[in-house]
Formats: sequence, structure tokens, C-alpha cells
Amino acid sequence: MSNNPTLIALDWGTSNLRASLLGPGGAVLDRRSAAGGVMAVPEHRFEAALRSLCGDWIDAHRGPLLASGMIGSRQGWVEAPYLPCPATRDAAAARLVAVPLAGGATLHIVPGLVCTGADGQADVMRGEETQLWGAGLADGEVCVLPGTHSKWAWTGVGGAVERFQTYMTGELHAVLVQHSILGRLMQPGAARPAAFADGARLGLAEHAHLTHLIFAARTAGLMATRGADELPDFLSGLLIGAEVGSARQRGAPAAVTLLGEAALCDRYAVALQLAGMTARAAPADATTRGQWRVAVAAGLVKETA
Amino acid sequence: MSNNPTLIALDWGTSNLRASLLGPGGAVLDRRSAAGGVMAVPEHRFEAALRSLCGDWIDAHRGPLLASGMIGSRQGWVEAPYLPCPATRDAAAARLVAVPLAGGATLHIVPGLVCTGADGQADVMRGEETQLWGAGLADGEVCVLPGTHSKWAWTGVGGAVERFQTYMTGELHAVLVQHSILGRLMQPGAARPAAFADGARLGLAEHAHLTHLIFAARTAGLMATRGADELPDFLSGLLIGAEVGSARQRGAPAAVTLLGEAALCDRYAVALQLAGMTARAAPADATTRGQWRVAVAAGLVKETA
Repeated sequence: MSNNPTLIALDWGTSNLRASLLGPGGAVLDRRSAAGGVMAVPEHRFEAALRSLCGDWIDAHRGPLLASGMIGSRQGWVEAPYLPCPATRDAAAARLVAVPLAGGATLHIVPGLVCTGADGQADVMRGEETQLWGAGLADGEVCVLPGTHSKWAWTGVGGAVERFQTYMTGELHAVLVQHSILGRLMQPGAARPAAFADGARLGLAEHAHLTHLIFAARTAGLMATRGADELPDFLSGLLIGAEVGSARQRGAPAAVTLLGEAALCDRYAVALQLAGMTARAAPADATTRGQWRVAVAAGLVKETA
Repeated sequence: MSNNPTLIALDWGTSNLRASLLGPGGAVLDRRSAAGGVMAVPEHRFEAALRSLCGDWIDAHRGPLLASGMIGSRQGWVEAPYLPCPATRDAAAARLVAVPLAGGATLHIVPGLVCTGADGQADVMRGEETQLWGAGLADGEVCVLPGTHSKWAWTGVGGAVERFQTYMTGELHAVLVQHSILGRLMQPGAARPAAFADGARLGLAEHAHLTHLIFAARTAGLMATRGADELPDFLSGLLIGAEVGSARQRGAPAAVTLLGEAALCDRYAVALQLAGMTARAAPADATTRGQWRVAVAAGLVKETA
């Protein structure tokens, strides 16, 4: 291996560990991933999981490692206390938590963010803050990060994460399909875009009545107004539509940026369009770019080669 | 056994089978119950489950049986097709589905109801319609039936069920506690009324943002603003508060009747009070009274001895 590599960047979430070997300027030299997320590593053996995925990189490179995501949570390796919003990349860079590794290298964990929502309740993120700093957002822009726990983030002056709110949309869909009576009439299968759009329209219009609304995913099956294979996407539409409806009522602008897995972002784009909104896609490498920029701000690597 | 008994009334739901032996005027002579609900009976062996609970009544009585609840669903014994709203007790009495039993007796199954909600979606009930007809409601009254699938029902002229809407509040609480990330920080224990009331206030105020709001039951644990033993009731308050907030927005009046299990009705009474509403309790024997009245309307029994 050449002496080219300058940073090992880890996107270490609940389910997966994704490692990127970065060269000068943050160029991606190599990528690897494993099902080594925080909840998947037995007995907190995080260093073993890390070495198993990229021990060769660590030994050859001997430079710094930087990790963002749930690895900094209380259930993770070492807790990186939440940084309050508004939070800049520089503030996070000043609060990295250092974990010495066997062999002399050091892993730096990016802290998550906490803010107080419009309803007076705390809200938290871990990992998404780093993606936001890598997405090239303008001041005042709103970025939507669909997922298990979907986030809507408002960008402030100088790229700070001003505030954000979490929606349990993805997890709610999963538990309702797998564990509630709604799943009993469902038959998973191919995507049903028309059923999704119908659900999204209804969710947008009736988001103030969600615990009633989701029951429609049962009655539509009972009354045979929808086929069993349409119901999973109908429910997905209801939940994503309700999320968009809520965020719009909470002041989201008509144009937002979408950051996340492509197929899921496509669903959100449909719901946003039905709400009269427009969406642009964030750059695909936002996570790695954000990790690189935090490492630069922390002085772990140099901006240019 | 005397020749006193006139009707065997069955409240046959998803989990339980509750049987009442009724005498002249609908007086309760005896009661029995078993975990013999529709989902608990193997291989649809409903007659065996029924005989196992009260075969001696059937043999001695030789009169009619009447059943309300999920036993009339597609997953039940024989499907009793939904009756459209507005639906009177007399209309239901004219649509009972007869099931001949070994030995010559007949079981009559009460149909459930279907209506179209304010959002254009179908809504259904099975069993609650019979309780409503037994609750002695006045024209125009709204009755709330808390439960796994909580119902709000509007009474029309002549005691008809005019329309209703279902909230998946109880089931949503159960799946979130048992299967979502919210449950991980929770420690079930004694009732925490203050946490419930805090949740209910928040749910009432912010019911339009529910999939965001429930995440507060995680952050309150993460931030240690609430103890692990407070979180289940905090979430219960959020969900019940959101239900009341939605129903109020959908036109529920300031005074309603509560019909259901006492401890759960107490929770609803707290949330209703926080919403500036008042609640009176329905008579405790509404289910049996309703079954008796349907049987009278169907000519299966005589009103008086």
C-alpha cells in the first residue's frame, strides 16, 4: 500500500459498519462494509469488529480514523456527548472523542446533536449531522434524510445545523407490517406506485388524525377496495404523506434537499410533489465528504495534499 | 337447572369468549369466560370451544344463543356481513346470521357495522355496535370505547349508530413498547399518572405531528428528563392525547360517554378533562343489555317474562 491514504472514515450505525479509505483531498481510494453495526457486535467487541473489516488498512496506514453514527451513543464504543444546536462542523471537530487503538492509531468519534423542538421536547441525531456538513447545503436550506428515523434539518448561518425534527416513519411502517393487525391482510411484493400515491395524498390531507388514518390500511383490505399486495405501499404512502404534511405545517419551505438511499428518496420525492413541493438530490458522497471536512476542521488531515 | 333461562349471550372477541346466561327481562343468572377468542381457537373448532365453556347450559336450556363480536368476522365461525351506517338495533336484528348447533339449538351472530369516514375511507366495528345499543345513549350523543382499537361513535335518531371512527391507540402502544426502539429505554412498573398527564397534554397540543411526537418518548429517556419507569405511561398519554385531539378536531362534543374497562376509561377521563371535556360512564352491563335488546328485536326472546 502506498503512503497515499490519509484517513480511514467510518460510517458506523446501528446495523452496519461502512469503512472508506480516503486519500489526499478526501478522494475515496477504497470502500468496505459489514453487518457490524452497534447492535450487531456481540459483547461490545468493537475493536475486533473494526479490525476484522479493515485491520490491514489500520496497520498499513497508521494514520487517524474518524467515525460518525451510533458508535458514539451510550450503546456504542465510547459515548460522545450530544452537541447542542445550532451546531457547526467546527464545533463538532472541537469535541471529537478520542479512542486509542491497539497498535498506536487513534479513532475519533464525532458527537451527535441535540436540539429542542417546537413542542419543547428534545430531539437527537447521530451520524446525520456529518452527512449534513458534507451535503453542501446553503444557509437556510432544509434537508430531508429519509430512513428508519427520518430527519428534517434546517441549516443556519455558516452551514450550522440550526434545528431538526425526527419522524419515526420507517420504524413505524416496519413494526405495523410485522407486528400489528395491519400486516395480517398484507402480501409484500412488487412496488405499487399508485397505491403509494393514494396513501400519500390521504396522509398529507389527514396527517392530524394518524392513529385513525392507519386503520384505513386494514379496512381497505377488509372491504377489498385494495389488494393485499397494494397495502404495504398504501401504508407507506400514508406515513410518508403524514410526515410531509406535519413538516410543512411546522414551516418546511416548498423546496428541500433529499439525502439518503435512492429508492426511499424517490418515494419521498413523490410525496413532496403531491404536497406541491420540489426536491433536489444531495450529492451521493455526502457522508464521506462530511467526515473528511470534520477531520480537516479537527486538524487530523490537511485540506489538500 | 330451572326453565328460567331464556338466552345464552356470547361476547366473542379476538382473545376471549365471555358467556352470560340470561333470565326473563335479561337478568344475568350466571357468567363464565375463557381465553377462547377467535384467534385463540385452533383450527376453527368454535363449536368445541363453545361447548367446553357452556355445553351444560346449552343442553339444559335448549333455547337460542346470540353472539356479538369478532366471531362474525371472516376469521370467525361464520361471516356476518357488515351492516352500513346509520344502523339501528332493529336493522341488525333483521340480519342475524343463524348457525345450527349439534343438539338442535341455534346460534345467532350479530353483524358488525361499516361506515365511511370524513376522510372518505371505510371504517368497521364488530361487537361495539351491540354495546352501543345497550348503553342507553341519547340521540346525538357521542360514546368513546377505549381499547386496542378505540372507537368514537356518534348516535343518531332512534339510537342508530350514525357514524364512528377507529383509532389504533391501544395496539400502537403495545407494538411500540414491545417491538420498537422506544421500548428499549422503558421499564414497565407502577402507574405514573403525572407522566401520563404530561404526555396527554403534549399529545393534545401536537396531535398533528404524531410520528415525530412519539420520538419524544425516546429522547426523554436518553436525556434522562424522565425515568425509564415513567416512559410507558408518558407514551400512553401521548397516544391517548393525540386521539382525543383528533376526535375533537373532527367535531366530538365537549361531553361524551365512556364505555369500557374501568382502568382504561380512567385514563381517557384524565385526557378528556385536560382537553376541557367531560365524560360520564356508560352502565357496566351495556354489552349484555345490548345483546338482550337485539335478541328481543329479533323475536328470539320476549321483552318481559
